[in-house]
Amino acid sequence: MEQQRAVEPFDVVDLITTKRFGRALEREEIAWVVDAFTRGVVAAEQMSALFMAIVIQGMERDEITAMTEAMIASGERMDFTKLGRPAIDKHSTGGVGDKITLPLVPLMASLGVAVPQLSGRGLGHTGGTLDKLESIPGWRASLSNDEMIAMLTDIGGVICAAGSGLAPADRKMYALRDVTGTVAAVPLIASSIMSKKIAEGAGGLVLDVKFGSGAFLPAVADARELATTMVQLGADSGLQTVALLTDMDAPLGRAVGNANEVRESVEVLAGGGPRDVVELTLALAREMLALAGKADVDPEPALSDGRAMDAWRRLIAAQGGDPDASLPEANEHETVRAERDGTVQRVDARAVGVGAWRLGAGRARPGDPVDHAAGVEVLVRPGDRVRAGDPLFIAACDSAGRMARGLDSLRSAVQLGDSAPPTRQLIAGRIAG
Amino acid sequence: MEQQRAVEPFDVVDLITTKRFGRALEREEIAWVVDAFTRGVVAAEQMSALFMAIVIQGMERDEITAMTEAMIASGERMDFTKLGRPAIDKHSTGGVGDKITLPLVPLMASLGVAVPQLSGRGLGHTGGTLDKLESIPGWRASLSNDEMIAMLTDIGGVICAAGSGLAPADRKMYALRDVTGTVAAVPLIASSIMSKKIAEGAGGLVLDVKFGSGAFLPAVADARELATTMVQLGADSGLQTVALLTDMDAPLGRAVGNANEVRESVEVLAGGGPRDVVELTLALAREMLALAGKADVDPEPALSDGRAMDAWRRLIAAQGGDPDASLPEANEHETVRAERDGTVQRVDARAVGVGAWRLGAGRARPGDPVDHAAGVEVLVRPGDRVRAGDPLFIAACDSAGRMARGLDSLRSAVQLGDSAPPTRQLIAGRIAG
Repeated sequence: MEQQRAVEPFDVVDLITTKRFGRALEREEIAWVVDAFTRGVVAAEQMSALFMAIVIQGMERDEITAMTEAMIASGERMDFTKLGRPAIDKHSTGGVGDKITLPLVPLMASLGVAVPQLSGRGLGHTGGTLDKLESIPGWRASLSNDEMIAMLTDIGGVICAAGSGLAPADRKMYALRDVTGTVAAVPLIASSIMSKKIAEGAGGLVLDVKFGSGAFLPAVADARELATTMVQLGADSGLQTVALLTDMDAPLGRAVGNANEVRESVEVLAGGGPRDVVELTLALAREMLALAGKADVDPEPALSDGRAMDAWRRLIAAQGGDPDASLPEANEHETVRAERDGTVQRVDARAVGVGAWRLGAGRARPGDPVDHAAGVEVLVRPGDRVRAGDPLFIAACDSAGRMARGLDSLRSAVQLGDSAPPTRQLIAGRIAG
Repeated sequence: MEQQRAVEPFDVVDLITTKRFGRALEREEIAWVVDAFTRGVVAAEQMSALFMAIVIQGMERDEITAMTEAMIASGERMDFTKLGRPAIDKHSTGGVGDKITLPLVPLMASLGVAVPQLSGRGLGHTGGTLDKLESIPGWRASLSNDEMIAMLTDIGGVICAAGSGLAPADRKMYALRDVTGTVAAVPLIASSIMSKKIAEGAGGLVLDVKFGSGAFLPAVADARELATTMVQLGADSGLQTVALLTDMDAPLGRAVGNANEVRESVEVLAGGGPRDVVELTLALAREMLALAGKADVDPEPALSDGRAMDAWRRLIAAQGGDPDASLPEANEHETVRAERDGTVQRVDARAVGVGAWRLGAGRARPGDPVDHAAGVEVLVRPGDRVRAGDPLFIAACDSAGRMARGLDSLRSAVQLGDSAPPTRQLIAGRIAG
């Protein structure tokens, strides 16, 4: 201990012990431990003990701000101020059937607001935007920073893989949290998301914070705490941030998977598509327009008059994709049917997400391939009346073994009852700085 | 996750999450995680996250028993039933100036009770029995199991290094806890100590559980909880266990270091020595005699009539040591003096221990060497009247740089006041199964 103190300003065991007893860490201590972990001076087993103490004991606002700043300081910062148009970022905490990025980015591009959408891949029961787009033949996720800036300047939007330059400390920390049961804690989630978003350097940020069974924080109170924390973090560092709290208890739209979610997104861009997907796309678009100083612009016409679709085609083509190509189709389809007459009480987003994952649409480990054709078509919504034998879901995949396991999960996903279920609002709250 | 489940019966992230939320783990889960960590299937960063969750959320009695059994199952068990005399073990949770093992083992040997004392080395401000004995020229700590059994049979006692065969899971777990701030938690301490003691297979066990500033659990309530837990663990596995709760707020005796503690132990074996060292040696001896079925034997005469000293000489010689050799002496001595007249309110064991450590008597990291000649002579006890300029401590070491740092700690160790301090009992409690 004495020897370590000679070269490092703090002893990590002291910091762990401080948090173990629920006391706050100093800004300098947090800055040091994030940097020392990134440098390899603090070992993974020490950092995971600290994470668990944080998960159980929490962090104060100043600590979360310090953690976020330390992660930003670990990498590069981008600059979107010279695009000739406002750059507004968007982030969703992830859900089942959440393909909103796909129609939203071209919609905003068509309205003169640049969206630099650095996305990820799916893990477990939640899908990833890149996985969905990779079902388009030829489309590639990886771009250089120059290619990204060129797309934002020329077309006004980009959806691509996050590079390794932004907040590398966060990447290393997240990989550790993922295997040590220390993911689901508001201070760590908030600083992880916001460090990357602040480092990106957009002029504003709209957050879609999910609650309900398909969200990774199902309780609305937890989602509200996360949203409030992130909005505060944005305000603290000069990034105007607005959060919508949205319901993820039922899947968004009818399509859950990869290629089928692209198809549904194209329907929305053609002026159609499921009502909830359109509603959320437009609500997020209005928040982004307001942050861009265009609160008077109505986004709805751009969906119906083809402007958003034009932007979509340009975005896909610029990354090598063929917007007219056929998307992959599964060989096997099975229908899950209602076992009795009744009213749909609930369509459990988590059970549907797990079903799609088991069918092959998702992955169990980072790096695993996904089956772009696999997925679920959701045929009912809460409140629908059904008769015994009516179809509830169509499951699609290419493997009989996967089909059986996916159907198991889907069979438990719909609850039927005899009265009307309570009405749920898709957009349950709005939090602004 | 899916893939791991195919070969391992549990998912460690599930176990970590269970404990994170304060729920109890099943016996099978604990057995698996200890074994899987020992095999390297559960990674250090996962185990340390689980340890931190245990440290904060605690464990129920059944969980602690399962943890102890899992660690015992990781290694060999010894058998001391064929020695021709009862074998009773002893363990101290460690303190400053705690050399009791040195007079106690030969005393018990002289009374026909075999003590298999598998000891450790010191770390931080607490000394280690092996470090003390290694100040005797020629003495060696490492013995084979056969040499150990031979000494127990022939002489009736042995003090040596614990081999690697007993509870190897505990060794790996303790090394991890040491660097991750997860040492000081009753369930983990109790199972760590008792797994080794139960695996040793003695017929009874006397525990000296310390409280006060020099103990690693300073609060008496924590020490009592630890003692009670260990006595229960002993009872659960058929090892008769008695614990004494003893005060470690002031150093034991006058000598704190290595060679000087051996000298003080020899004084006790010669019928002299500091009152508190003699009192604790005899109290522990009486408990051990009672567990050996010799409650009617008075241990005190064996100290004054030379029987214990004879056993000491045989024990040291059997391990290559010369009981008549001169012990190392330091080159430099400095006296810390009272700054004013007053009554000694407190001699802070922790500050004295840190002082001796900084003088070179202890080590900061496992494997570092210790200076056998370095140490502290403690000249006052709580309640003593002193005048300004009276000596309080004599510090001994061989390096001027170390001397200054050691003296810094010693100068803060004595608190002077104007009234008599409250009386403290050396032996504050007794817990039996």
